[in-house]
Order: sequence, then structure tokens, then C-alpha cells
Amino acid sequence: MSTATLHPIDAGSITSIPGFDAAGVAAGIKANGALDVALVTSNRPCVAAAVFTTNAFKAAPVLYDQRILAENPSGIRAVVINAGCANACTGEQGMRNAEATAEAAAEALGIAPGDVMLMSTGVIGAQLPMDKLTRGVAAAAAQRSSSIDAGHDAARAIMTTDTRPKECAIRVTCEGASFTIGGMAKGAGMIHPNMATLLCLLTTDAAIAPDLAQRALRDAVDTSFNMITVDGDTSTNDTALLLANGTAAAAPITAADSLAYEAFFQGLTHVLTALAQGIVRDAEGATRFITITVRGAADAAAAKQVGMSVARSLLVKTAIYGRDANWGRIVCAVGYSGVPVDPSRVGVWLGDLELVRAGAPYDVNEERAAAILEQPDIAITVDLGQGSAAATVWTCDISHSYVDINAHYRT
Amino acid sequence: MSTATLHPIDAGSITSIPGFDAAGVAAGIKANGALDVALVTSNRPCVAAAVFTTNAFKAAPVLYDQRILAENPSGIRAVVINAGCANACTGEQGMRNAEATAEAAAEALGIAPGDVMLMSTGVIGAQLPMDKLTRGVAAAAAQRSSSIDAGHDAARAIMTTDTRPKECAIRVTCEGASFTIGGMAKGAGMIHPNMATLLCLLTTDAAIAPDLAQRALRDAVDTSFNMITVDGDTSTNDTALLLANGTAAAAPITAADSLAYEAFFQGLTHVLTALAQGIVRDAEGATRFITITVRGAADAAAAKQVGMSVARSLLVKTAIYGRDANWGRIVCAVGYSGVPVDPSRVGVWLGDLELVRAGAPYDVNEERAAAILEQPDIAITVDLGQGSAAATVWTCDISHSYVDINAHYRT
Repeated sequence: MSTATLHPIDAGSITSIPGFDAAGVAAGIKANGALDVALVTSNRPCVAAAVFTTNAFKAAPVLYDQRILAENPSGIRAVVINAGCANACTGEQGMRNAEATAEAAAEALGIAPGDVMLMSTGVIGAQLPMDKLTRGVAAAAAQRSSSIDAGHDAARAIMTTDTRPKECAIRVTCEGASFTIGGMAKGAGMIHPNMATLLCLLTTDAAIAPDLAQRALRDAVDTSFNMITVDGDTSTNDTALLLANGTAAAAPITAADSLAYEAFFQGLTHVLTALAQGIVRDAEGATRFITITVRGAADAAAAKQVGMSVARSLLVKTAIYGRDANWGRIVCAVGYSGVPVDPSRVGVWLGDLELVRAGAPYDVNEERAAAILEQPDIAITVDLGQGSAAATVWTCDISHSYVDINAHYRT
Repeated sequence: MSTATLHPIDAGSITSIPGFDAAGVAAGIKANGALDVALVTSNRPCVAAAVFTTNAFKAAPVLYDQRILAENPSGIRAVVINAGCANACTGEQGMRNAEATAEAAAEALGIAPGDVMLMSTGVIGAQLPMDKLTRGVAAAAAQRSSSIDAGHDAARAIMTTDTRPKECAIRVTCEGASFTIGGMAKGAGMIHPNMATLLCLLTTDAAIAPDLAQRALRDAVDTSFNMITVDGDTSTNDTALLLANGTAAAAPITAADSLAYEAFFQGLTHVLTALAQGIVRDAEGATRFITITVRGAADAAAAKQVGMSVARSLLVKTAIYGRDANWGRIVCAVGYSGVPVDPSRVGVWLGDLELVRAGAPYDVNEERAAAILEQPDIAITVDLGQGSAAATVWTCDISHSYVDINAHYRT
């Protein structure tokens, strides 16, 4: 039993965590002149943990970070993030540009290039505009600060088709000690995580051993980012990075079976889940936030597989956009999920309306269903009637705007 | 080596095959008064073969047909197909309605109920309007004929959101003997076949043993219907049914290693491929027909998996709708297909434009790409650089109209 308590930090950001500075600047990579380069630095070396995309076409910054993390897991001092260009499918030139970015940051900050990690997001296949980027990195290094607004600027600088930044910070208290965890993320499209997703940077002042940081991050990502889908596309750049600077007064976390580790894991899961839900709420063109809970499954993996099958169904997503309680499409997606299902035991609820019982229509009250679908948050529950395992996944509807945004993304 | 020759039959339909009659009538199941009940009969018992949906929620007519096929594989005389109501997820009442439909047809035709097979398509979860349907079946029985127009009427009666019927008929000649194969199909949405897809009825006057008919149908479906996707949703009602009445002068097909079987298989594959491509061309809201060829794969299953990953990508489909040669999205979908890929060996072509060589941009000529994307038929080729296996899948773009159609399907 954990005795941890989580306290939200109002309007918190990654700079709500002691020892971290940030900046967001407009370097001219985005055509519209918006903020597009974020720099986050720590006043002391950090333990780093990360999960990356499983896509075979890993972007240059992903491959670069994997190398840095293997060589220097406890000495990270800075992260450079640019939006507008993903530096993916860019070959050897892309890797040279990644290295040059780290060198530029290292020079501006007076640290070693091997202490710098990188993330990029934007169009796939274009080379980074290195003149603009290096000038942006230098400007960000000069103006970085520990203010909350500096954290907010960084969160805005990593946005692409996002309409708002996603940030979260909390204080975790446990057995009289306390530490803080902050995070920022970007998403919107090409969202179907597999290991990690999108770009997400987490900061904490907890002191934690590298292997425990990695374990906590991986496990917390599994129940947060890996439970969301927007369009079923897993990007080439997905990265979730945790930096722990150890400045909190709390004792170092050195054992996985400790109360402190459990508190840290709870806090991390809270921040990641808030960011993951924020990404779905701000998904390209989304008008409804949909929570799909699958219960009565033989095991959690089967529950997730059924939930993701419903969450990925274009027909379910367009029906909800049309405010149509077309439960037949939900049942259909349950049926083709690949999980063995006995139709005669399946139940489906829309909110608290029991649409399907034992595989057949039960309380199909179209008027009540329509009222439920007018709400911004929609809950779908599927009971497989097989066992006691459950999983919850989050998704959104697919609207005309999604088609608009993605038909003309590069133009 | 086969010496079979395939001759297309102009404006052919299922009634181009000797011994088959058909009718399409408006029974009032569709709200707009369009044709909605098709009846196809044979003047003698037929060998029947079928493949059905793999969805766990099999519609009542699918479960009914599986029983009939097991009991009576060589004595089928009639098929009733209705559109407007899928009779899926309808419980015991749905199965009783299926049985009553077969009984009504049997009575009108003077045959046994066990000689009648069924298909339904339309909204999931609604019960069949049995008064309308039985009146429609009786009317269809009274007016059925062997005319080509009667076949065309039947093909129109099975449409839902289809904008045009899909029909094909050919004459196959082999070693001096000859026979004919005709087919009709409906599709448009909820298209992601797995075993069989949609509704498809094939007629032939070839004489063929039941096990060989089943083998030929299964194998031909694998390279036709199982190679298309519109929206990734596998329906509850998918059925492809072949009726062989054996009236052709050609000798019966009794051995899988015979020239006659090979000729039959070639002809069947031709008809099924034409129908499958017709379904994609008429997919809900589609503006582009996309052929994706994956070559250089380790085996055919891997090639299909990569092709389907690209074909299912909403981002690829919306980019093509926007006439945007966003090859990064193609590469991204190759990367997350689940097939191990070495990015440095991957090539991508749009038409004859080599966009990607060795995993990096090669000849990205946006002007030529734009001209290619103005054509109604788009070819994408992916070379994995691993082996010599290949597969071709067919899909379409996703447009605003797809969202329109599926947001308001039931209203």
C-alpha cells in the first residue's frame, strides 16, 4: 500500500521543477513565424530514461538519442526540440544535422555535446534548415529561464497541428518527503503509440536510479500513451524522455519495492495520463473525446486489443462525429478484433445506456442516446463476459476537419 | 502450362450463364423505394461453395448458409439477397427470420427450404421487415427471367451506399471445351476483407466437384477480395457464394491438377478481381483508385502485410485525396507494418517517379508528382530490398464524402 498523495500544481510546466530552465523561440522553421525551437536545460547532470517509437524508420534524433542514452544515462544537461521538420528519412545528412544541433547547443551552454538530447517533429523527409536552427538554439540558450512562462513557451514551441499546448505538473508527497514531476507533450495526428508516442519531455527533481527511471517510464507509458489512438498511424519520431535532476530533499529512490518508487510511479502515471488525454482532446479535427472501457476479458492484453479495435474503427469514429448511436459498428469492431469472442455474452453501453445485452439490442433508446452524444465526453463500455480483466483506451471522432488538415498538411 | 483463354462477355451479368434466372424488386425495405430484394435461381441443383466473414459476430444469414452448405453442398437451387437490413446482431429472432425467408422462397419456387441460401446487407441490429420481404420474394419469384436485364436488376437490388452495380461475366475456353462464369458484388464501406468480403454471388455452368469448387473459390478470393481495403472494417455479413450448375458441355472438373481446373481457377480469379476492383472504385467517397505493389519482400505474406499497412493509413489516404505526394507517410506506414524492414534498402515509387531510394528522398519532383496525382488511377510501388516475393493490394483515398456518408448512414 502506498501512502503517496498527488497535489496538482496550478498552471504548472516543466519549469515548475526546481533546477530546470527553458525557452521557446521562433527560429523561422515554421512558415507562419510561430515558436518552433524549445530548449530545456538542467543546472546539474540528470538521470535520463526514454522510450522511443517502434517504427522501423526511426528519425535521426531518435537514433541519436538512443546512442547518447546508452553512453551517458546519468549526465544529461539539455534537450533541444524543434517543430516544423521531423528530420526523419533524411539519411546520413540527417544524422550529421542532428549531431551539429547538439554541438551548437553544447557550445552555447558550455557543456559537452554528449550531454545534449534531441527531438524533432514536423514534415518527414525534409532536411533541417541548420542556419535557422543553430541561430534559434543560441537565442534560446541566451534567454532561457526558470520562470513558468518560459516552460509555457517551450510547450508552445513543440506544437505542430496542435491547437494548444499540453502541460502538467504535480507535487508528490510520500512519508513526509516530497518531489515534483512536470511534463509537456505534443500530438494531434499520426497518433497510434507503440512503445512511446509523439514528443513528450518530463522533468523531475526526484533522485532515482537510471534503471528504475527507465522501468517507471516504460510502465507508465504502457497505461497512458500506449492506450490512445487518433488515426492508427505510428510516427517515426515518437519519443518520451524523462530527466531526473535529484535536487529534491527526498531520499534517492533505489529499490523497486519501496514506497518511494511506488509514489514516483503513481505521480509519473498521473502526469503521463493527463498529457495523453490532452493529446486526444486536441487531436486533429476531433469534436468528441471517447473513453472506451473493455471489461470481462480473459486478460488485459485481450481487453486492450478489443478496445483498440473499436477505437481505430473509422465507422465508429464517423458515426460518433455524426451523433449516431450506431452500436452495430461497435459490435462489428469487437467481432473483428482478433480476440475470440462469444457474441451471446457481449454487452455494450453508451454512457449508462445498455444498448446491447447478450449480443442483441437491449435498451436502444435513440432519444437518450442522442442526448449522450451531445456531450463532449463519450463513454463506451464493452463487457466480453469472459473473465475479470479490463483496459481503458482513449480516442476521438474523425471529422471533416481531420480530412482537411491531412489532405493539405504540406501546403 | 494452361491453355485457357478468357473472353469477356459484353455487359454480362449472372444471367449470362445458361440455366440461371434472376429478378430484382422493390419491396420497400429501403426507405427510398429502390430495388432491394434480389432472387437468383437455377433450373437444376447446383454445387455450392462459399467463404464467409471471419467476424465473431456473424449475421444470421451467414450462420444459416454455413448450416445449409454443410447439409446440402450439391443441391442449391436459389439465393435470396436483401439490402437495407443486414439481419446481424439480431439474436434468435434474426435466425427465425432467416429461416422464414428461405421458406417463403421455397414455397414460391416449389423447392425445399434447404435448397435456398441467403444474404443480407444494410444496417446492423435491425430485424428484417418480414411482411415486406416475403411479399418481395414472391414478386421476384413470379417475375424472374433469364434475360441480361434481370441479372442487372438483381445486381442493383443488392446495393447499399454503392453508386453503381458491380458485374462481370466471361467465357473460358480450354482444350476445345468451354464454360462461362458470371458474378455480381456489392461493397462501398466496412470493407476490409478477411476470408471473404461483402456480398458476392458467382454463377457458372461448369461442372465441378464440391471440394474443388470450394478450393478454387477460397484461393481466388485470397488474391482478389482479400487484397482490397477501404476503411479497415471487416463486416459481419461478408459472403462470397459460387453456384455451379454443370450445364456446360465441357467435361466435369474432378482433379486439381487438371488443365480444366486451372482454366476454371483463372476464370474465377479474373471475375473476382474485376468485382473487387469495382468495389474499390465505387468505395464511399473515393476519388482515386490506388494500386499498391510491394516487391522485394521475404515472402508474399510479408509483402501483403506491408501493402495493407500503407493501404490502411489514413494519412496516406487523405494525402492522396489532397493530391499531395507526401511520401514520408508511405515510408512511415511501411515502418510500422510489423514486418522487419531495413530502411536503408527501401525504395518507393509514385507511378514511375522514384521518390525514395535507399530510405532517403531521391527524385522528389513535386511538379511531376502533382501531375501523377491528377490521374484517377494511382500506382504506388514499394521495394523492400529483401527478397523476391511480391503482393498487390487495392485501395482508395478517404475524402470529405466518406465522412459525410458514414456520419449520417442511419439517418
